[in-house]
Amino acid sequence: MPVNLSAPDPLTLLPVAGVELGWAEAGIRKPGRKDLLLVRLAEGASVAGVFTRNRFCAAPVLVCRQHLTAGAGIRALVVNTGNANAGTGAAGLADAQATCDEVARLIGSAASQVLPFSTGVIMEPLPVQRLLAGLPKAVQRLAPAHWGQAAEAIMTTDTVPKAASRRIEVDARPIAVTGIAKGAGMIRPNMATMLGFIATDAAVEPALWRQLTMDIAEASFNRITVDGDTSTNDSLILIATGSSGVAPIEVADDPRVRVLRGALLEVAQHLAQAIVRDGEGATKFIEIIVDGAATAEEASRVAYSIAHSPLVKTAFFASDPNLGRILAAVGNAGIADLEQSRVQLHLNDVWVARDGGRHPQYREEDGQRVMKGAEIAVRVELGRGGAASTVWTCDLSHEYVSINADYRS
Amino acid sequence: MPVNLSAPDPLTLLPVAGVELGWAEAGIRKPGRKDLLLVRLAEGASVAGVFTRNRFCAAPVLVCRQHLTAGAGIRALVVNTGNANAGTGAAGLADAQATCDEVARLIGSAASQVLPFSTGVIMEPLPVQRLLAGLPKAVQRLAPAHWGQAAEAIMTTDTVPKAASRRIEVDARPIAVTGIAKGAGMIRPNMATMLGFIATDAAVEPALWRQLTMDIAEASFNRITVDGDTSTNDSLILIATGSSGVAPIEVADDPRVRVLRGALLEVAQHLAQAIVRDGEGATKFIEIIVDGAATAEEASRVAYSIAHSPLVKTAFFASDPNLGRILAAVGNAGIADLEQSRVQLHLNDVWVARDGGRHPQYREEDGQRVMKGAEIAVRVELGRGGAASTVWTCDLSHEYVSINADYRS
Repeated sequence: MPVNLSAPDPLTLLPVAGVELGWAEAGIRKPGRKDLLLVRLAEGASVAGVFTRNRFCAAPVLVCRQHLTAGAGIRALVVNTGNANAGTGAAGLADAQATCDEVARLIGSAASQVLPFSTGVIMEPLPVQRLLAGLPKAVQRLAPAHWGQAAEAIMTTDTVPKAASRRIEVDARPIAVTGIAKGAGMIRPNMATMLGFIATDAAVEPALWRQLTMDIAEASFNRITVDGDTSTNDSLILIATGSSGVAPIEVADDPRVRVLRGALLEVAQHLAQAIVRDGEGATKFIEIIVDGAATAEEASRVAYSIAHSPLVKTAFFASDPNLGRILAAVGNAGIADLEQSRVQLHLNDVWVARDGGRHPQYREEDGQRVMKGAEIAVRVELGRGGAASTVWTCDLSHEYVSINADYRS
Repeated sequence: MPVNLSAPDPLTLLPVAGVELGWAEAGIRKPGRKDLLLVRLAEGASVAGVFTRNRFCAAPVLVCRQHLTAGAGIRALVVNTGNANAGTGAAGLADAQATCDEVARLIGSAASQVLPFSTGVIMEPLPVQRLLAGLPKAVQRLAPAHWGQAAEAIMTTDTVPKAASRRIEVDARPIAVTGIAKGAGMIRPNMATMLGFIATDAAVEPALWRQLTMDIAEASFNRITVDGDTSTNDSLILIATGSSGVAPIEVADDPRVRVLRGALLEVAQHLAQAIVRDGEGATKFIEIIVDGAATAEEASRVAYSIAHSPLVKTAFFASDPNLGRILAAVGNAGIADLEQSRVQLHLNDVWVARDGGRHPQYREEDGQRVMKGAEIAVRVELGRGGAASTVWTCDLSHEYVSINADYRS
């Protein structure tokens, strides 16, 4: 059961001029479910990507990086679920390449203009023939209105499709920002078994678009964690088709950047938080804010130390205000000169700890009340400086173990 | 159900001359169970300790460090379970001090000659009056034969008491090495909610003893992990009473060091592995050996990345040879210039991966066979150099979640 998250109403998902989406049931892992997505882009779109830092990154990630730097202009994205094409060596690379070749043939582009994505089980050969056989059907279905089906086609252990749209006005003309994402486990900073695709019909100069993409990733998908595992396949792609006809944005201080960035960030944060809300086995959505740090990096380290502690996560699952576990996680973040006596801990509106110990006015029933809720904000003040960081995570439940113990069966 | 671990036969636990142990049921958290241990040492014992690196370390850890550096000679250890006296601020320090004062009064020493230890719930005030009231009974019971009861008295979520002994010969005289430990969760490198006490009646010069203690800790308790959480209270204490009458060992190249170190390491590794075998919810005992690393630190980082991956741990629990998750964990260890194509993976006698992908001869049924066992060795070869590291861990099961979600109830 996802935490306060329901499937998006397809009617609220705005088409983006210059983007068409089609899907197929290719039977890659199991028959009878959408497992293949094709996205066709208008010529001249700016496309930028951010990818996993896992050194065992998947074959499609390697190919994406190559094709993005080749600079021939991206015309299509192809995504399969059911198999990650990771830990597959040279054969996996050839399979990813063959996929691009076939898409290129079908849509009439060069193979280097196609970006491939895979998600699913690691270290099993990609059933590339079934994938290729499914492509014509996906081409047939290409249409701008298919964002909802596209969100479904990229799901793996997700229980809810993830999509969001915003409409803004630029130069008195409507601009759409629409995105989809998938991911529910193996989620942590620097991406996850997380795929995200966000498109707008605004026009943005490619170098500026790459910069915006990194900036958006840092403030959204790089701030979430479910289980601390970083996947081999994480990819976030931002697309600016320019098909709206609005004049291109070419410099960072163009006032239109602020408006566009705002809409992109809203969509990206919605999708990133949706991944946590649908985190494998999640029953609670936890926001961790660390403030008063010497540096943002230090704040982030403390936030992730809390977010990754199995003891903290199981206490949230149990609604048990065993809050000393949070202090222990703060102590584990590797800040050598941390002073216990300066650390403060709040849970929503409840002041839990100060001066290295429990707040004199803290009452267990207040902690209990907050822990029972489905949305909890943990605020830690380190008393070391002015830097802060926020991370979103979920609890660790029986269901997490069940899902991951049964994933392949 | 611990993995291949049963309670030690009390008859195999050798008394150590110069060490007496007594316990009480002080009702610190719940009535009717052993929760207080007192250990009295002969005058002149060498005592050394290794403590948690958690910056939110508990009050007794702070007091231990003070008393060990004060150098008055340690005459007693006092251990309570049920409350960690951590995250308790100035009041916690006063309580730990009061405990030392009372032990000192009862046994006729200075308070600085007493080391206090606590384990249990964090951030709740220590019920120090109940602890103090239990001490006279523990004093009454002081006797050299009480190692078995001592092992029981320090248990928290442990399901099996942990103790081991070795007898060696030094200068043609029998020397005993006996140790006890507790800990089942919050276990990771650099200690855990882990308490370990190992004593011998050999005589060792204090500075050499401190060096041996760090050396033993590094090769035993610092090589285990259950859940990656480092506790506020971890302490390992090594005691050399010198009561055997054998001439003191004073230099590191004394040939007797090798024999004594061997016995200490056997006891320490047995206890450390027992903690993993009794890991919260453990159903499997996993040995992770990383070889071919550029440095031992790098090997260790990869081993812990595997040992801490919830996805790897749940796959072990499910006996599911979803072994790509191990490669993903290797990729997550933060080695920037790791080459996938040089990495090899073995599971017991099965060669799983090479050249960045599945080994051509690997068959799923072989992986399945190994995964079904209760003892699994994971061997990763990085192809970068000659350094190696070993880590012991367990799987992540439903039971882990249950234990930690219910711990305080």
